[in-house]
Amino acid sequence: MYQELLTGLLNGDIRSLARCISLVENEAAGYESILEQLPGNNHTKVVGVTGPPGAGKSTLVNALITSLLEADKSVAIIAVDPSSPFNFGALLGDRIRMGQHFNHPKVFIRSMASRGALGGLSPKIIEVSDLVKAAGFDYLFIETVGVGQSEVEVAGVADTTVVVVVPEAGDEIQTMKAGLMEIADIFVVNKADREQADIFAKNLRLLAHTKHQPGGWEIPVIKSVAIQNTGITDIIHAVDAHHKAVTGQHQRQLILLADRAYQLIQHKRMKDINKQLLMSEIQQLLEQNSFNLYRYINESSCFTQRGKEGKEA
Amino acid sequence: MYQELLTGLLNGDIRSLARCISLVENEAAGYESILEQLPGNNHTKVVGVTGPPGAGKSTLVNALITSLLEADKSVAIIAVDPSSPFNFGALLGDRIRMGQHFNHPKVFIRSMASRGALGGLSPKIIEVSDLVKAAGFDYLFIETVGVGQSEVEVAGVADTTVVVVVPEAGDEIQTMKAGLMEIADIFVVNKADREQADIFAKNLRLLAHTKHQPGGWEIPVIKSVAIQNTGITDIIHAVDAHHKAVTGQHQRQLILLADRAYQLIQHKRMKDINKQLLMSEIQQLLEQNSFNLYRYINESSCFTQRGKEGKEA
Repeated sequence: MYQELLTGLLNGDIRSLARCISLVENEAAGYESILEQLPGNNHTKVVGVTGPPGAGKSTLVNALITSLLEADKSVAIIAVDPSSPFNFGALLGDRIRMGQHFNHPKVFIRSMASRGALGGLSPKIIEVSDLVKAAGFDYLFIETVGVGQSEVEVAGVADTTVVVVVPEAGDEIQTMKAGLMEIADIFVVNKADREQADIFAKNLRLLAHTKHQPGGWEIPVIKSVAIQNTGITDIIHAVDAHHKAVTGQHQRQLILLADRAYQLIQHKRMKDINKQLLMSEIQQLLEQNSFNLYRYINESSCFTQRGKEGKEA
Repeated sequence: MYQELLTGLLNGDIRSLARCISLVENEAAGYESILEQLPGNNHTKVVGVTGPPGAGKSTLVNALITSLLEADKSVAIIAVDPSSPFNFGALLGDRIRMGQHFNHPKVFIRSMASRGALGGLSPKIIEVSDLVKAAGFDYLFIETVGVGQSEVEVAGVADTTVVVVVPEAGDEIQTMKAGLMEIADIFVVNKADREQADIFAKNLRLLAHTKHQPGGWEIPVIKSVAIQNTGITDIIHAVDAHHKAVTGQHQRQLILLADRAYQLIQHKRMKDINKQLLMSEIQQLLEQNSFNLYRYINESSCFTQRGKEGKEA
């Protein structure tokens, strides 16, 4: 099934890739066979680009694409949209800006929703990344927009995580950065033509220095003005250097893979839950004056065989 | 099993509550029977308190406790710690500050870790909340520290979510607030003795006004200086008003409950996964030159019967 499509994908055909992604996103019949036939090895550098809204991530990614295309590299971008309707405006602007590369034969751009209606983050990002990798792109950028969990979770999919920040003042910065510090392999201080940029970058460097990374990687802090194409080459060099540094870091790869496997298993095990039925059963419960959620979960008819067997004896 | 303990819990005995929580956290044999015997109804107002680090959440919760105790209310606090080692310093300070209430007979304070080592957020927070509610507290505050997903997920457990922010300047505020806007039922602008506080609160009010809440609830923006006990009564009034407004909002309750049920089911279904074994199998895979994660997941011996049956035909 899908043999022709798979052959196209492995030859780097963009239309085949797009179709494979759609099949996987929609969980079309037999989509798993595509994933199970993907080769395990490839050279794609998977780069997560994250940071607070307004840091200029899309402009930066855009500048990175331009620079990489000049070096004759192929680039794929997965833009992870927050599910919040509040960010549509900002998003639209981003996509439009990135539009200049939409028709380039060596560029592939795809948007994905960060989460489903009910339940956790879509493991589809892992699956789609693997499809892109199989298509043989040199770089895959996964850009997450927004506040929330997406930036943390993208760190589990990417080989290298770039955290984009802008120069700020204020006493909550230090603590705020601690959350991003955990996931950053590279810091980019964008909009570095702002006044406080030097002090900010210096402080960030001091903070970054306190974090000991496995394999002795020192988190670089790179200043950029994405809109003027400043600092872009430095970022690409840092990405390449990091990729080289972590390749063969067994422990890191192990944790990343185990985490991916866990997420995929979780998705698989929850697939048979009929969410509509769950909702309607909860609705019935609500109409009773008193009920117990834990008893419901053990007794519900909404779950298949598999769920039932999970019941404690 | 545990009948005596359960009776103690339902009578509001704090030692019984603490023991029940430990049993549930450690998944001691038979812990599920405790949860399955909890009554479905109770009057506890569950209030999530969240916001960026440095906003003064703990000081605020502390002031709220003092005020509620004066009104002869009983209060429980669950402090959700981020798993990041980076925040230990800040946390320690918080706990010490809240310590003044530690020995009060009408106060119950408990810390919980936000996530496990491998895999998603602990659904233990749902279970522990239900235990606290069964013990009959008037208020339960769930305080999340840190950047990341915890603030979003606490919104699924709490009846009312209070988002604490501090006056700031800068162009990324608007977008930043959008993420918090989604979950806020009440905004508190803490440290409101700062210069820009009035303009900030005004802008936030304009932003809050654009969000249509079900049932016509208008998100209030309340100024406070927690350290001076200013604005505390207003916050309590807003919490009470919100609780009254959403009680009986069928649709909201339905979504909250369905989400809780889904999380509990997910946890149940993933319990049998031996994470050690998963890690060691992935380790073996890594030693091969090429492998496919999707095939591994279908074929692994690491999962029990239940996992196997989940396999697609």
